[in-house]
Amino acid sequence: MDYFIIMRFKIGCVLSYEVYISSTFIFNISAEKNEYQNILKEKLTVDPNLQIKEFIAKNNLTRSHMLFVEQGKFDIAYEAEVEISSVVHNVDDAAEIHTTKLPHNVIEYLYPSRYCESDKLIRITQKEFANIPSGFSRVTAICNWIYENVEYLFGTTGNMTSAYDTVAERAGVCRDFAHLGIALCRALGIPARFCSSYAYGLNPPDFHAYFEAYLGNSWYIFDPTRLAPQTSFVKIGTGHDAADLSFATIIGNAEMKNIEITMDSISTDENNNIIEPKFTTKPITSGHL
Amino acid sequence: MDYFIIMRFKIGCVLSYEVYISSTFIFNISAEKNEYQNILKEKLTVDPNLQIKEFIAKNNLTRSHMLFVEQGKFDIAYEAEVEISSVVHNVDDAAEIHTTKLPHNVIEYLYPSRYCESDKLIRITQKEFANIPSGFSRVTAICNWIYENVEYLFGTTGNMTSAYDTVAERAGVCRDFAHLGIALCRALGIPARFCSSYAYGLNPPDFHAYFEAYLGNSWYIFDPTRLAPQTSFVKIGTGHDAADLSFATIIGNAEMKNIEITMDSISTDENNNIIEPKFTTKPITSGHL
Amino acid sequence: MDYFIIMRFKIGCVLSYEVYISSTFIFNISAEKNEYQNILKEKLTVDPNLQIKEFIAKNNLTRSHMLFVEQGKFDIAYEAEVEISSVVHNVDDAAEIHTTKLPHNVIEYLYPSRYCESDKLIRITQKEFANIPSGFSRVTAICNWIYENVEYLFGTTGNMTSAYDTVAERAGVCRDFAHLGIALCRALGIPARFCSSYAYGLNPPDFHAYFEAYLGNSWYIFDPTRLAPQTSFVKIGTGHDAADLSFATIIGNAEMKNIEITMDSISTDENNNIIEPKFTTKPITSGHL
Amino acid sequence: MDYFIIMRFKIGCVLSYEVYISSTFIFNISAEKNEYQNILKEKLTVDPNLQIKEFIAKNNLTRSHMLFVEQGKFDIAYEAEVEISSVVHNVDDAAEIHTTKLPHNVIEYLYPSRYCESDKLIRITQKEFANIPSGFSRVTAICNWIYENVEYLFGTTGNMTSAYDTVAERAGVCRDFAHLGIALCRALGIPARFCSSYAYGLNPPDFHAYFEAYLGNSWYIFDPTRLAPQTSFVKIGTGHDAADLSFATIIGNAEMKNIEITMDSISTDENNNIIEPKFTTKPITSGHL
Repeated sequence: MDYFIIMRFKIGCVLSYEVYISSTFIFNISAEKNEYQNILKEKLTVDPNLQIKEFIAKNNLTRSHMLFVEQGKFDIAYEAEVEISSVVHNVDDAAEIHTTKLPHNVIEYLYPSRYCESDKLIRITQKEFANIPSGFSRVTAICNWIYENVEYLFGTTGNMTSAYDTVAERAGVCRDFAHLGIALCRALGIPARFCSSYAYGLNPPDFHAYFEAYLGNSWYIFDPTRLAPQTSFVKIGTGHDAADLSFATIIGNAEMKNIEITMDSISTDENNNIIEPKFTTKPITSGHL
Repeated sequence: MDYFIIMRFKIGCVLSYEVYISSTFIFNISAEKNEYQNILKEKLTVDPNLQIKEFIAKNNLTRSHMLFVEQGKFDIAYEAEVEISSVVHNVDDAAEIHTTKLPHNVIEYLYPSRYCESDKLIRITQKEFANIPSGFSRVTAICNWIYENVEYLFGTTGNMTSAYDTVAERAGVCRDFAHLGIALCRALGIPARFCSSYAYGLNPPDFHAYFEAYLGNSWYIFDPTRLAPQTSFVKIGTGHDAADLSFATIIGNAEMKNIEITMDSISTDENNNIIEPKFTTKPITSGHL
Repeated sequence: MDYFIIMRFKIGCVLSYEVYISSTFIFNISAEKNEYQNILKEKLTVDPNLQIKEFIAKNNLTRSHMLFVEQGKFDIAYEAEVEISSVVHNVDDAAEIHTTKLPHNVIEYLYPSRYCESDKLIRITQKEFANIPSGFSRVTAICNWIYENVEYLFGTTGNMTSAYDTVAERAGVCRDFAHLGIALCRALGIPARFCSSYAYGLNPPDFHAYFEAYLGNSWYIFDPTRLAPQTSFVKIGTGHDAADLSFATIIGNAEMKNIEITMDSISTDENNNIIEPKFTTKPITSGHL
Repeated sequence: MDYFIIMRFKIGCVLSYEVYISSTFIFNISAEKNEYQNILKEKLTVDPNLQIKEFIAKNNLTRSHMLFVEQGKFDIAYEAEVEISSVVHNVDDAAEIHTTKLPHNVIEYLYPSRYCESDKLIRITQKEFANIPSGFSRVTAICNWIYENVEYLFGTTGNMTSAYDTVAERAGVCRDFAHLGIALCRALGIPARFCSSYAYGLNPPDFHAYFEAYLGNSWYIFDPTRLAPQTSFVKIGTGHDAADLSFATIIGNAEMKNIEITMDSISTDENNNIIEPKFTTKPITSGHL
């Protein structure tokens, strides 16, 4: 009874840097290639024109791009057209799996990580979520709790902020929401992982972060921010948390001077009108590897 | 319509130390003298017999005792009989006071302190307590929230644990409960201060910590632990938080080897039977300075 | 052999706010009146014209100003001419005082506070400073260590950053430098307190923070930032740390839109030329209360 | 010019639990199988006799064992005889590798993790280690700094303590030492990973933790504790930090009641006398995968 929602998007980003000393950059900005995410075309350009080394981290499908850049100005631009197949499931499919029955490569997503200190949040999770029906309902309850208790607010958090902080301070942006969701899931014994993506309709346009929880043998999409339709997520990659997936890691010294992100729907109906992605409360998976 | 509950207690403590190098000790273990706490008799003894310097910190009425102790074994013992007059108020008396109307010497109890980072807890307080009727009801709601959400548990927290941690980790002992109550009050604009005391019926016997909130021109007693009747609190002192009131501050190097605390009711009824202190949910003040 | 350096300054600040809901403001922006700081003239004005309540917190001489402001725009301006008498001492005068010999009202400045977790920093202090000659040399060594190990950097820290963070992250602004200095002193058993002030020559102009350590029966000035001459510090007040002395505490909801700080020397020599304050490495006290 | 040191050890552990509710256990207590660690014989037994699921996490060679245990008492015992080949290298072989030249599967060990917040420790690393000759010397300098600045002390840290805390608090046990070493390496752009092991001569006997840094195309062993000879490390596994390698992860509720660890050298010389492992300051690798 599962069915697909298929959407096409044109995405792009331009990042501009001032490089103070020769630096190594690792970018995670290109769409992941997976069976549910078909890259129709794409282009990665850098100015000045430098050799780009593409590699795939062993844990997932993220395509990272590494460059060595000399002092001076530096721009990187990515453009792609992507077709996303989102699978809509029945709630009953998204059941929690007993720990002993989990696939081995999923177990690592039960452990605490840099930004998701699930080991410190056992009691709040027990208190708030232990009595909620398990599976999709429970992870949805976690997302609702975050949405209701944490204020979406720019400028109060940074790349030092972790789930532990967010429980106390109750403010943050998409990555903080995702980290908290992940930490609460792991504290309940539900494997969860961090996803970075392009997402439709963000204001201001930006990269997005959400999370996936492992239920019923698939990775289900959850987004406690409610800021963009899940069927519009063009996944860049997955990791334990944002530490694995920073869109730009700089080893050296450089400063980002500008960032521009664009995203348009290029799906059309029979009359050639653009179809906009819609929100859903159904269980969704996409590229479950 | 206020009325008094008057109780008498016999309290005592013996603290034993192994002193590794000559050390200065500051003890906060003797009952505060105030108009609601009448010290009928008391005795402070040390072994070996050393000169004790008593002083009163300017912020409050706490009697501190300072000694300089040479290497070796060292014991300090305190015994007292104290009559406590608890004032039972009407709920309507315990109203919140507008900041601009607060006495000047109360304002400092609005600010964040070492263990009560009220500045970090603004949002959780707004979310949980902004819509509760102000005054005694609101501070009671804070205590109830702590009682229901934080587990009373020995061994999980220490003298590094602050209110910020307790919001996330949800476990602690009486001092952690008091710190959280204080932080939440201050974040709402209600002055709150830390109290250390003897308290009746603790199991195992120990020093106790609770807090006072400034309402209706008095300092009202609140204890989110619900472990001892408020009318049994023999106050040692008050401060911004536990940093001001450690029962023993050691400048040097020494280790506590044993602690014994005793407390008995010596109030009697007309038949000469001992009266035990009772719990109450009424607003109580005691020694409001 | 002590001698005085006497300087005169004209100081001023204008703070502009957008007030979103009726709010209580507590300002700590006016020069402290003490025997070494003579206020020649001063003016505090607010627009719109509101009643200002001046009060002095019991711990020190800080003059706080409290107002209740309705929604809308709000400006406060302070201007003063101040004569400062700095006392220059011999190094030998600035000796460490044994804990048991400290005045009672100084002892509270030995305890950890919100931003100065001296209790967590015992070992680093022992390691770095235990073997340095005690007194002025030792506190100077603390300041040098901070100057050499912590980068002065805007934008990396905020009002959540404490001395504990600064030991690890090694960056901050004047208040972070002062907090770390205080925490390290207290961990060594030297009382230390936070001071906020106007200071000459800051670029960009801003309020300043430094600290005082209690040595030889006076409070000695220390400034690990080396950004302004100590003889130019027009003290606003002292406290346990910045939590006691925020230049503006807002209970309500308002946003600062602009801040302007000015400071000029109005000391003149016999030819009527302006004298600029000079740096010194001598022990300096000023208004030791 | 590399040469091998080959040693044989008999290792064992017995862990005893009281299981309060049916719980899933994941153990990481058995020796890793790798080309430099030859397992001559081994035995894993549980009482009561339950089905044990062995699996290998995809990141490394750690053999994990998972069991589902009912309420009651539960023991697990592991015994093995292992031959370890340690490779002793020239210092020149252990050079730092430029980020762009690192193997892809090594890059993840550059990122911050749960207990190794290298992102927060950039400045202290620059200050202390930027000017030290790169490669083996630099990582050795990191270990020396930790050894000299952090006190080896039981009971002051726990499973919440991270490298950030250890920089400030300066005390810890082997896992804290390893976490700090890893964080400092990563902050310098040197990949580093956590290792858990059996180690010879620990007093009291316990599991051990050390770290490996990626230099000259191999993972080199470093141990800032100096508590056991590197040639005696029987590796259990490697991970980003202790979060990946807890010797026992319990999903449920159980308490460890006893732990016994044994380790003996079974290497003999030509006269059949037992050879004890020796400390070395040479660069050592072992099972570099």
